[in-house]
Parts: sequence; structure tokens; C-alpha cells
Amino acid sequence: MQKIKCAVLGATGVVGQHFLRLLVDHPYFELTSICASDARAGLALGTVKEQVEGGVPKSFHQMIFDPMDVTGLAAKGVRVAFSALPAEVADKMEKEAAQKGICVFSNAGSYRMDEQVPILVPEINHAHLQLVKQQKTPGFIVTNANCTTTGLVMALLPIMPFGIRRIISASYQAISGAGYPGLSALDILGNVIPYIKNEEPKVRREMAKICGTLTGVAIQPTDWEIFAHCIRVQTTIGHLISVHIELERSVTHAEVKQALVEFKSPSVIAGLPTAPIRPIIFNEEIDRPQPRYDVLLGDPERARGMAVAIGRLEVEDRVVRLVTLSNNLVRGAAGGSVLNAELALRQGLLSA
Amino acid sequence: MQKIKCAVLGATGVVGQHFLRLLVDHPYFELTSICASDARAGLALGTVKEQVEGGVPKSFHQMIFDPMDVTGLAAKGVRVAFSALPAEVADKMEKEAAQKGICVFSNAGSYRMDEQVPILVPEINHAHLQLVKQQKTPGFIVTNANCTTTGLVMALLPIMPFGIRRIISASYQAISGAGYPGLSALDILGNVIPYIKNEEPKVRREMAKICGTLTGVAIQPTDWEIFAHCIRVQTTIGHLISVHIELERSVTHAEVKQALVEFKSPSVIAGLPTAPIRPIIFNEEIDRPQPRYDVLLGDPERARGMAVAIGRLEVEDRVVRLVTLSNNLVRGAAGGSVLNAELALRQGLLSA
Amino acid sequence: MQKIKCAVLGATGVVGQHFLRLLVDHPYFELTSICASDARAGLALGTVKEQVEGGVPKSFHQMIFDPMDVTGLAAKGVRVAFSALPAEVADKMEKEAAQKGICVFSNAGSYRMDEQVPILVPEINHAHLQLVKQQKTPGFIVTNANCTTTGLVMALLPIMPFGIRRIISASYQAISGAGYPGLSALDILGNVIPYIKNEEPKVRREMAKICGTLTGVAIQPTDWEIFAHCIRVQTTIGHLISVHIELERSVTHAEVKQALVEFKSPSVIAGLPTAPIRPIIFNEEIDRPQPRYDVLLGDPERARGMAVAIGRLEVEDRVVRLVTLSNNLVRGAAGGSVLNAELALRQGLLSA
Amino acid sequence: MQKIKCAVLGATGVVGQHFLRLLVDHPYFELTSICASDARAGLALGTVKEQVEGGVPKSFHQMIFDPMDVTGLAAKGVRVAFSALPAEVADKMEKEAAQKGICVFSNAGSYRMDEQVPILVPEINHAHLQLVKQQKTPGFIVTNANCTTTGLVMALLPIMPFGIRRIISASYQAISGAGYPGLSALDILGNVIPYIKNEEPKVRREMAKICGTLTGVAIQPTDWEIFAHCIRVQTTIGHLISVHIELERSVTHAEVKQALVEFKSPSVIAGLPTAPIRPIIFNEEIDRPQPRYDVLLGDPERARGMAVAIGRLEVEDRVVRLVTLSNNLVRGAAGGSVLNAELALRQGLLSA
Repeated sequence: MQKIKCAVLGATGVVGQHFLRLLVDHPYFELTSICASDARAGLALGTVKEQVEGGVPKSFHQMIFDPMDVTGLAAKGVRVAFSALPAEVADKMEKEAAQKGICVFSNAGSYRMDEQVPILVPEINHAHLQLVKQQKTPGFIVTNANCTTTGLVMALLPIMPFGIRRIISASYQAISGAGYPGLSALDILGNVIPYIKNEEPKVRREMAKICGTLTGVAIQPTDWEIFAHCIRVQTTIGHLISVHIELERSVTHAEVKQALVEFKSPSVIAGLPTAPIRPIIFNEEIDRPQPRYDVLLGDPERARGMAVAIGRLEVEDRVVRLVTLSNNLVRGAAGGSVLNAELALRQGLLSA
Repeated sequence: MQKIKCAVLGATGVVGQHFLRLLVDHPYFELTSICASDARAGLALGTVKEQVEGGVPKSFHQMIFDPMDVTGLAAKGVRVAFSALPAEVADKMEKEAAQKGICVFSNAGSYRMDEQVPILVPEINHAHLQLVKQQKTPGFIVTNANCTTTGLVMALLPIMPFGIRRIISASYQAISGAGYPGLSALDILGNVIPYIKNEEPKVRREMAKICGTLTGVAIQPTDWEIFAHCIRVQTTIGHLISVHIELERSVTHAEVKQALVEFKSPSVIAGLPTAPIRPIIFNEEIDRPQPRYDVLLGDPERARGMAVAIGRLEVEDRVVRLVTLSNNLVRGAAGGSVLNAELALRQGLLSA
Repeated sequence: MQKIKCAVLGATGVVGQHFLRLLVDHPYFELTSICASDARAGLALGTVKEQVEGGVPKSFHQMIFDPMDVTGLAAKGVRVAFSALPAEVADKMEKEAAQKGICVFSNAGSYRMDEQVPILVPEINHAHLQLVKQQKTPGFIVTNANCTTTGLVMALLPIMPFGIRRIISASYQAISGAGYPGLSALDILGNVIPYIKNEEPKVRREMAKICGTLTGVAIQPTDWEIFAHCIRVQTTIGHLISVHIELERSVTHAEVKQALVEFKSPSVIAGLPTAPIRPIIFNEEIDRPQPRYDVLLGDPERARGMAVAIGRLEVEDRVVRLVTLSNNLVRGAAGGSVLNAELALRQGLLSA
Repeated sequence: MQKIKCAVLGATGVVGQHFLRLLVDHPYFELTSICASDARAGLALGTVKEQVEGGVPKSFHQMIFDPMDVTGLAAKGVRVAFSALPAEVADKMEKEAAQKGICVFSNAGSYRMDEQVPILVPEINHAHLQLVKQQKTPGFIVTNANCTTTGLVMALLPIMPFGIRRIISASYQAISGAGYPGLSALDILGNVIPYIKNEEPKVRREMAKICGTLTGVAIQPTDWEIFAHCIRVQTTIGHLISVHIELERSVTHAEVKQALVEFKSPSVIAGLPTAPIRPIIFNEEIDRPQPRYDVLLGDPERARGMAVAIGRLEVEDRVVRLVTLSNNLVRGAAGGSVLNAELALRQGLLSA
């Protein structure tokens, strides 16, 4: 198979560098272009400040930044763009890319709530990918969810069959979720910050959309009651979330545990390079998951950081309580979008 | 007024050192004895490792540790003991002290669920202090609540009149709550630990008892549904808690805010040395309270750390959501017990 | 005595807020004006983000920011300005203030190496204050040293009589030394950064000047060999420094210890409000000083944070080794300049 | 080649788990036995608390702890033991193991200063390995250096040819160097601790021995003057050290840089599985090395964490200044001993 030429937009930041890492020797995609701000155009990728353990992959060090110009990218044969752009830049550039025939897989929030753009977490709503056919452009835009939403909906996925009525969550979010430079060290050292701008409404809206139903050409959001506190703590990677779920009916601990333990990737994504074989890792240990130890779960190797760890399962009548942990840079950002692109390719939506 | 002779039991630890600090020039109590393990007997207090900013007060440095022997304490005229003993030692020693006529104000968990021992948070349940008359000993035992429970019930106090039905909480607890040496640095640096041994059942039981009703000689616990996640984060002092409250009836944001803003210490404790004038500090700022900035609130000076900070108030029909922060070493430990002793004195339960 | 009207320039930052705190009820100075950027002009001081435990003093909350205009300040009767301006603003504004008759006590680095401007650490070089008479302006500029230099020279002060030949230091500097927002949390969490821009040459130059000799109208810097590594660690307040000193001659441990233990403030500053009675606190404990416990030393109360803690004293022939810790926001910044102004007043260089 | 049966003594701790990780599929050694305290005997290795990212390798989870009995180990054919025992246990057990014919490669400090035991850092003193022939036991003991010493001597190695006269160092040591549970979180959060028990004399003695000369049957230590401050900071892995070196003669920056950049593993260890091709990684970036980014350097894959990163090179006449960073758990502990064993095997000192 001929690889599809792809670009990373916003390649200098924390998420951008994760896109780069995930695209090394990718079996489907070949990284041929990188963009960041126009000020970078002409510089080599190797000059970028390392923001991820391991940094920019050596094999990409010599790549030269292109200008922020989608016409140019399209002319160079770029067919797929992975976007780690800040929202205010993504607004304009992602739309233009789609107009030029580029298929954008975006971590930006700009188009997540657009009616024709899916927020794709393929284990849950792979069917929503069809929505892109409603977009009236040669290319299209697919988004991954906000990093907090992702960990939450992944945890809910095996529980959805029991009938969810209400969700109350409180998050313990890592600083890397704010990008770079992000938080001032003076603000977060020895501290907890009980507010993250715009985050709580995002979780509520995005969750309802992701878990909603595609009927014809529109997504009908769920009617779950959702209450989310989004709170920053002093960790580097990994969003842990305390989750309280009220169901339609009583369940037993055994039922829920079985649903979590036995959960496997749906066949529609099975075998995709970045799809973890077991997207949910269930912890029996009473004090797990923990960010220090559990943010790099996922097999095969390419899917490290794509599995979500769940623990502290408690079931009481119609209440299910648990703790979920996801890698906000991989599953909740770059990895999510790469998986989305792999699925789009399998479904015939991309071509070289 | 002649001051009452008092002792601090377990004077070497984090909470013990806070007791010492609070007893410097206390208008009612005179510190005349200190105990820790028997191995300390005969040593000077000044030899103790500093575990609190400011350390052991200079005026107490020359005090000599007594043996762990309540008969000896009683013989020296000690009438009140502040206990920061570990539970396994408190089990035996606090009971013996009460038998020797000493009134014990304890931070230990040993007797909190004893039917004749109140868990006293005087803003809420000062009436429960009468329960000590049921104890068949010359002295008695009064406990303060677990440090997490304290912050939670203080936040609920102004909201109780609206009728509470259900509480769902997730805590962000500081490492000092585990005492010294407590957590290994290797476990908590850059990490979140989603489990604290025994803590969640304590919160549930203690809260129901504290907010319960004293009818005759027994406390009828509340029938609130309580779900608490107790989670450790990398802060030093201050337990922050995300709280979701379901009420019996709809309320407005204005009603709840008014109840919080206007809340004052009840007259029964008004003017006590360690009673804050405003036990609840309401925050308008969207990103407060924060442990770094808000754990030392409370006027007058002697009551610093006794006020609880509340923020992020949201009201939606019958749901009230907020974040509460309390000083786990002062309000949730040493300060709570000192206030309890002051109240007991005012109510005529103590005499020199 | 009539108080002298003063202003704080750059009142919003970490050092600026410390100036405010130190000026509450100051016996000599009355805060009548505050400036920050022009964008702040007209806003109340109470709107500023709290960056210091305790925040902006309540009594100043209603003060309104003035425009950044020294003519206006002079017209309002401001005679003294405490400057926490960033260097690029200080360059211009401090010079203009001096031209308008304002005496500037500055934490900025702009004029430290100016031949007519003293870097004043009064315990060491109070005589250098006379240098301001060489400045050809109605007002003048006096600077405090860089925060790292300050802790270092204070530690050397009692040792200078033994004859210093060479100094080799390595610092453990707190993040607050970089101001706000300063370091990205992503850069410093769980990390050490072995470089601080411009800091090492500053230490070398400033130390040589501070410890130099005023002969006539010029300072002759010391000829000590100075090697300084300036390194950032994950602490909030307090610069700790490992110091290796080579002397002209052999000394004994007892001699050096005595010099440190018995060191007192020189009479020229004795009794000034912000002068600590003992500027050097000598630690016998093998593992002190530590930032967590020792950054708020100094009596009287107003001088808290002005004393420097020294420990780990080792003497071997002509080598003296020790660890020094100073509060980079008080002794090494705001407190240093306030003390300088108090001295200037005592010496008749200021008048209302 | 038949693999040599080996044991890990003290397999539960931080260093022990690194030994396990390094022995997975090792080409020379086959892990057949594990010991910890006798209380573990009979339990499975998989029950051990994870203390290293990645934890106990899955392939070893079913291994059962043996009793702490070297006779039993010898009887099972164990020929090599990797020791991560605490010093007080190592004292007795390592000697007994050598008496039973087992070759011990130890991270414990017990025998480092024994005249017949080499402290082996093979890049520097591979010749010292011959010293084991003086040990009058069927097996022998070889130690790796203290974790701080290791990083220091590795940095000095390329500079030794210029003639070293004096070394002054100050370290920034990670908490994992203290093992588990090691430091209390309350002691190190937001803090620097300027003292590590016994560490400074160790650095001085061990460095002199490692860099000393084997003449006949004894090591003549170097006569360098060595001054080391060993200081703990809030990092998890990686000891960074500020190093000031005085040479016998003047050198140029270019000379020293070349020595560092071109340094390669000596041929005697070249190609050993755990030997890094380039043991010294020279950093041009002004703010590197940093623990967060540079503790896992080293090629090939098996040697990750074995290379030492050096930066901040400054040369001034006879003074060389730099910063060195080494992985205290790999290069400074488990990896060092595994490399030592590989060298012993190559030199014919081990046999299956």
C-alpha cells in the first residue's frame, strides 16, 4: 500500500510532538510536512524545544517547517493533516484545509460542536464518522474529544448497556493538558486549582454528543444529567477522574466488573495500528490507577498510552462508582486523532 | 480565672506540634505536661524534629516529656488532655485518662463511633457535648472529626436548612493528613493516589453522626445518602473537596449564596478564643479556594486556620455544587479539639 | 516625625506585592502611589492577582493605580520610590524619577553596575551609600543586590575578616526568583534546570562590587576569584547555596563558628525597622537550613525574612564550607530595598 | 553459550526491581532465584509493590522468593548474585555467598572500602577487577560505586589525562537514591535538604579509590583534594552534580570539549550488552542536562540509563566547570553491577 502523505499542524507544542512520535514509521501515513507559526517557516524541526520525554524523533530532525498555508500543503500532495493548533488558529486553518481537499484530524476544540463534525472516539461512536459526508468540502474535519471527556466516556462505554441516567465527576488533571508554557509553576506547585477555563461545559456538551445517536444526518445527544468538576493538580501526564454514575436499574458488582474486564476493542477498529487490544484495563489493586504508573498502558507497543485504566469499582444498587485514568496527550489528544485517521482510511474515506 | 492544667499526648507529631502552638499563652489552658512514647520520657521538647513551619514554640523548648502514664498526669493536676495519639495507643490511654478524671479532647479515631462520645464540630452540633454526661467515668472523652469530614460538614452547615438528601464528594487531600513520616515521597511525587485507607467509611459514618440529632441520650444519625471518594494529591496542608449536594427542594443560587455569605458562628461559641468570627469564607473568584493561599483563614489571629473556604458555587434546581477547603491540621485536627475544650469550659464541664 | 510619601513601581508582581506588605504601617514611609503598566492606571490595587501568601494588604485594596509617569508622582509629593520594575522598564523610568527628585530604591538590575549607583547590603557596605552624592540628579538611585548574590555575600560577611581568596558556589534557587508567570510548570516539575539566564555573571560582578572598597568617589571591587553555578530547583521561596571558600590563611572551626554565631547588625543600621537584630542565624543541626522551614527568620517581626540562615559549617585548613539560605523575596529583594531606604533616611539623605 | 544462573538479592526495592528489568532476556545471565527478607519466602514476585515505571517484568511474576540462604542458592546452581541488599544485611550475606562460591556484584556499600574488593566503574578502572583474585574465597565480591560517586567519576574520566588536582562538587540528588520508602514526602515537598547521611565521606573515599592505581595487589588512591556537598532535591530519578575541577595545567575549552565529545567506551568493555557505545553525552544546549529529559540516555537499548550527560562546560585557565547528570538507579546502581558482571564474564572470571 502506498502511504498517504500527511502533515502535522502545530508541531512544536506538547501535543504536536506526540503526533510526531506516533507518526514515526507509521504503516499508513508518511509525514511529509510540518507547520507551526509562520515565524518557524524555513527552520528545522530539530530546533524545537523538547517537550516530551524523548523529544522530537531523530528521524524528523532535518524536516523544515512549511509556511502556514494549506494551499501549499495541498500542492505538495498532503492528504491528511493532524492538527494540534491552538483554537484561535484552528478556526480558520482547519476549514481552509478541508476546502483544499485535506482531511483534518484535529485535537483543537474549534469544530467539535459543529453539527457536521464528529467528535470521534471510535470504541464508542465509530458510526459518527459517516457524518463527514455532510460536510460540503472536498476534504473534511474529524475531531477527537477534549482530553478529560475522553477518559470519562471510555470509562462509561462498558457501562452504557446498563442504562446511564446521571454522571457526577471530579477530575485530577495534569498540567500538560494546558499545553506549553501553560501554567506558571508559581500557580501549581504545592497547590490544587479548582477551575479550568471552559473545561466543564466542554465535558458536558462533548460527552452528550459522543455518546449520542446518529440518526440520519444528525446526532441526537444523550439526555444524561452530567455534572463535572474539572480541577488541576500537580501531575505532569494523566487525567484521573472520580466518577459517580447512576443507572436506570440496579446492577451487581459482578455484572459491572465483568463488563469492564471483558471489554475489547470493537471489530471495526480491531487491528488498527494505534488501537489497543484492550482499551480498558481493570485494576483490582485498591490504590490504582495512579498517574505515575498507569499512563502508558496499551498493547501493541504503538498503542501505549491508548488504554484507559479503571479502578476503585464500587456498586451499590443503581450507583456505580469508579476512578478512571487516561493519558491526556495520547488517548486524549494525539493518539486519539491518529486512531481516527486509521479508521477513516479503513472505511475508505481517505486515499493517497 | 485560674488556668486549667493541660497535657498534650503525642506531642511530637504534626498534629501534636499544632496543639503546642495553639496552647501558647492560651487564656484558659496552661500546658504543664507533654507525653509521647515512653522512649521520650525525660527528654526536652526542644529535641523534637520540627514538623510545622515555626516548629515547637520556643517557650516550651525546656519542657520535659512525662512517661505515658495517666495516673502520673492526674497526680500532677492535669485536668484536660489534648490527644494526638495514634489510634492504637489512644484506644487504651484515652479511656484510662477519663477514668482518672481527665477530660480528653482527642484527634484520634478510636472513640469517635462510641455511642457516648460526641464527634464535636461546635458550629454544627454543640448540643452533642451533653452526651459526655452518659460516660460513666470521672473524666470524659470528646473527639473532633476526621480532617476530611470536618471540611465537608462545615460546608454543609449553611445548606442544611434547605434539606439535604444526598452528597457525592471527591477529595484532594494533603499529605500532612497522613502524619509523619506518612507517605513515602516516592509514592506521591508527581502522582495522585486514589485511595486512603479507612477514610471513606469514616467520612460516611462520622458525617451522619455529626449532623445527626441528639434525642435524649442517643444520637440519631442523618439518613442522607453519602458517597465519598478520598484521594491524595501532592499538597502539604489543606484538604480541598469537590461537593455535589442534592436537596429536598429547588433552591436559587441567590438563596444558597446568601446562606453561605451571611453565616456566622453560633452564639454558643461566639467569642471563644479559637472560634472564628466567620467560620465560612465565601469566594467569588472563579478559581478559589486554593490550598496555597487559603488554608490560614480565620479571625481573630488565634483562629487562623479555623475558617473554611468555599467557592465554585453552582446551583441547578435541587443540585448545589461547590468546592470546600479546610486546614486539616487546624480546623480538622488540633484547632477543632482546642475549640471543643473551650466550649466545654464555657458550659461548665471543666474545672481547675 | 512626618512620614515620607512613597510609591511602589511595579506593584503587581511577586516582589511588588512584598513591597506593599512591608509598607503597611511603616513608621517612616507612607504609601501614597502605586504604578504598574499603564493598562492598570485607574484600576484598584485590590483587583491584582494574589501572588504572595496573604496577598495585597487589605488596607491598600482601594488604592488606585497611577499612570507610569514620574512627573505626576513627583507632583503628588512622592519622595521615595520602591521599584520592582522589570529591567527594560526600569532602564528609563528610574533615571527619570531621579531627575524629578525622587529617591529610587530598586530591585531592578538596570543600574546595579553603574559606577555611581551603590548595590547596598547595609550590613556589609553601608559606606557605599555615600556614592549617591556623585549622581548628578535631584533624586538618586540605590539598588539592592540580585537575590542570589545577597544570600552569598551575607554568608561571607562574618568570614571576610579572615581574608577571602576564592569562592566556588552552587545554588538551589526557588522559582519565585523568576517572577510571575516566570517558569512554566512543565519545565520545573520533577526537574532541575542547571542554568539561569544572566545570573552567573551578575553574581560575580555584583559580589565583587558589594564587597569592594569605596575610595573617594569610586568602588574598587574585590579581587576574589568567584565561580558560581546558578541552578533552579522546585521550591517556591528561598535560595539555598552551597559555598566553598578559600581563605588567605588557616582558620579553625571554632574561630569561624564564633564569627558566625556572634555576628550582629552593625550599629549604623541597628534599630532600623527592617533590620534584623541577628542577620545571621547559625544552625547546629546537620540537615539545616531548609527552605521549607527557614525562610522566615528574623527579629523583630517586621524583619521576618531578613535574616540569613547558615549551616553545614566545615573548616579544613584554609577551606571553609557552608550552606546558606536567604529569602529571595524579602532579604534578596523588597526587604533589602526597604532597609536601604531606612538607612538613607537615618543618614539624612531623604526628607519629606 | 550456556547462560549463567543468577540471583537477585533484595529484589523488592527500587534498585532490586531495576536488576530484574535488566535481566529480562539477558544474553549471558538467567535469573533463577530471587530473595528478599525471609518473610517473603514462598511468595510470588508478582506480589511486590511496583516501584519502577513498568514494575516487575511480567515474565518474572510467577517466580517464588527463596529464603535468604546462600547455601540453598549455591545448591540450586546460582553462580552470580546481584545484590541490592541494605548494608546491614549485605554485611553478612555477601561474604557468605562468596564463601559458597557465588560471585557477588553488589550495590551495597558494605565492602566498597575493603582492600580486596574493587569498586568497579569499568570505563575507568576495569583493571581493578583483578583485585578479586586476592579474595580468599571460592566466589568473590565486586561493588559498584555509590550513585553520586558514579556520575562524578564518569564526568572526570575524559578530563583525567589533563591532570586533576582538586574537585569541588555540589549535588542535586533524586529521592530514589534513598530507596523505598526512603524520604517522607513531608520532608522533601517544596524543599531542599542539604545533607545526606554518610554520603559525602563516601564520595570522597570512593572517588579516590576508583580513580586510584592498582599496583601489584593494592590500590593506591588518588591524592586529589575532594570536597563534595551532597544535597537532596525534589526529583525522582537522576543525580545532577555541579562540578568544579582544578587541573595541574592550563587547558583550552576546545581541548576539554574534544575530550568529552570524542570519548568512547574502552575496548575492554566495547560490545558488552549493557555498555553504552558513548558513555558520555555532551550537551551544547546551555540549559541541559536536566533530570526530566536526560536520565535515559544510552545506546543500545539495553544500555538506556547507562550514559552520563554533561553540560555547561566552562574552562578558565586551569579551572574546568561543568554539570553532570547520571541515572542513579541504572548507571549508579543496577546497571553498573550488571555491566561489571558482563566484564567479569568476558575476562574469564565467571563460569556456568
